[in-house]
Amino acid sequence: MTEQTVSVELGERRYTIRIAANVLGEPRALADFVNGPDALIVSNEVVAPLYADRLRESLPGVRHELVILPDGEQTKSLTTIATVLDHLVAMNANRDTTVIALGGGVVGDISGFAASVYQRGVSFIQVPTTLLAQVDSSVGGKTGVNHPAGKNLIGAFHQPAHVLIDTGTLTTLPAREYSAGIAEIIKYAVLGDRRFLAWLENNITALREQDPTVVAEAIRHCCTMKAEIVAGDERERGRRALLNLGHTFGHAIETVAGYGEWLHGEAVAAGMVMAAIASDLPDRDIERLRSLLASAGLPVAPPPLGGDVLWRAMQLDKKVKDGKLRLILLRELGDAYVTADCNNAALQAALALADG
Amino acid sequence: MTEQTVSVELGERRYTIRIAANVLGEPRALADFVNGPDALIVSNEVVAPLYADRLRESLPGVRHELVILPDGEQTKSLTTIATVLDHLVAMNANRDTTVIALGGGVVGDISGFAASVYQRGVSFIQVPTTLLAQVDSSVGGKTGVNHPAGKNLIGAFHQPAHVLIDTGTLTTLPAREYSAGIAEIIKYAVLGDRRFLAWLENNITALREQDPTVVAEAIRHCCTMKAEIVAGDERERGRRALLNLGHTFGHAIETVAGYGEWLHGEAVAAGMVMAAIASDLPDRDIERLRSLLASAGLPVAPPPLGGDVLWRAMQLDKKVKDGKLRLILLRELGDAYVTADCNNAALQAALALADG
Repeated sequence: MTEQTVSVELGERRYTIRIAANVLGEPRALADFVNGPDALIVSNEVVAPLYADRLRESLPGVRHELVILPDGEQTKSLTTIATVLDHLVAMNANRDTTVIALGGGVVGDISGFAASVYQRGVSFIQVPTTLLAQVDSSVGGKTGVNHPAGKNLIGAFHQPAHVLIDTGTLTTLPAREYSAGIAEIIKYAVLGDRRFLAWLENNITALREQDPTVVAEAIRHCCTMKAEIVAGDERERGRRALLNLGHTFGHAIETVAGYGEWLHGEAVAAGMVMAAIASDLPDRDIERLRSLLASAGLPVAPPPLGGDVLWRAMQLDKKVKDGKLRLILLRELGDAYVTADCNNAALQAALALADG
Repeated sequence: MTEQTVSVELGERRYTIRIAANVLGEPRALADFVNGPDALIVSNEVVAPLYADRLRESLPGVRHELVILPDGEQTKSLTTIATVLDHLVAMNANRDTTVIALGGGVVGDISGFAASVYQRGVSFIQVPTTLLAQVDSSVGGKTGVNHPAGKNLIGAFHQPAHVLIDTGTLTTLPAREYSAGIAEIIKYAVLGDRRFLAWLENNITALREQDPTVVAEAIRHCCTMKAEIVAGDERERGRRALLNLGHTFGHAIETVAGYGEWLHGEAVAAGMVMAAIASDLPDRDIERLRSLLASAGLPVAPPPLGGDVLWRAMQLDKKVKDGKLRLILLRELGDAYVTADCNNAALQAALALADG
């Protein structure tokens, strides 16, 4: 399997995504992207014992420290940001210090947000170790933490200086988390690429079984799509919103169920089914989506939290504009759009799934 | 006295600064700069009782709420940011909500930082009511809070959508705070404008006595200088650093003395004297600077906190690069520059002022 590089073209904030197997530990794999004399590695209690030593080997000549956070979505809070900032202060970090995120989406979101506010912004590098982070959250510069009232309500746009995706780290990922990552891969297909959807349907078993060629191709395809969308709409004033397909329903599930009960990818999977129903797609398309999600080991309906309760939680979504919630809906599988006008009967049918 | 407008030319983030007496309360003075349906006014316990009602009159047709913070530099913490964010969540604020800062530099820094991280960035408007905020902190987009280890260590660049300077609010400002604002005015002259320095020496009594024409002209001159510098170097990669003249020494004084013991402007005044001494300026120039500061009712030396202690606090300054502290020094009064190479004997003489 060869290695691949994808560029995110953002002018002076341009950066590269390198996708390769077992590249962590290679001397200079990270050091070349560290500008100053020192770095803070941010990881968690699960990932650090597995990969922190290898990451250090990729930092020859760079003075570094390691902060280990608890695992899980509950960690994504302002309190944790304060912890990371305290570490930066304790190591006398300055504007030329680099923050390196080693872990999944939670570690990446926390590290990036802390890097964006320390001294009004220092450099950071993403080393995503979960499938979800590798195909989605490590690219594009969205960082942030949760508020008890809503997911990612507090954050910043802060692009990484580099993303190093070592697909070898997926071998230690629990199956449930691996499946949650596939949900985001399916999302890319459903929002805008019918050919990729067909490819996924043909390769879903190989993907679940971590066939190296299929995994690398899926990651490359998603990173390329995301890079292209982000380069055209960094601040999500238009097309980037499509990447939130399934997320408005999904975030509400996560918020109401309690952070960490449902994995983000699982909530997005159920959210995509709800979005398809709210889009009034034909039954056979909804079944096609459900079938693909189920093949990936993902849920195809929300938990019985109550449709009304979910609807209320959705009102705090960042996509509300002029008092109207904008949803990402589907014209068909592979073609998403943003709208504030939703067929109410279809929306009620989607929410009814949560009535149990 | 006529009203004045200064533009900050930052492309799509361009905004105007309006300087006028008793303009607060004028219908639409603020409403025209609010894009969405609602706003959160952030103020403090001293300013809100004086001006919040008048500000509300400038927001016809805009749904708004008010959050009142404690007064003082101690309020500038991550904890207060969480408080403001909780208010935004409680009012169901969305991406089109506007945050309005009514108060001095502390209120502006907190409001701007909260606005920059709420839903990854909402609009905000500055209504500065102290002289210091009117001539300096409300313009340019630096926002943030303090860490126990250092001033403004946590923050973001987030430009306001508009700055409304009502010089009428200065009539209720305590004399000590008014003098602290003059320190920043003197800073502009000393860092880069010898003619303005001479003008200030001629008008310092009228300025202290709040002659309306002199006050308006001083504010306009400082805002124009700042707008020009910020437009050319928004992220402080070069010339903008000159605006920190006296601030590296000053921040150390504030941090070591305990936030709030010394007003920011007072610390900057003493810091400018230290910078002049560290620059090895002739005695007559140092006396000239001291004389102007004293005429404004400002301190001309740091408190006896210990030169070594101040030096240690300065090492966490944001201007450290490659392990070397960069200082803003003076070639002469009216001509500042950034350097990492400081005459050590002169620096020791400056720090010795703090040995008491």
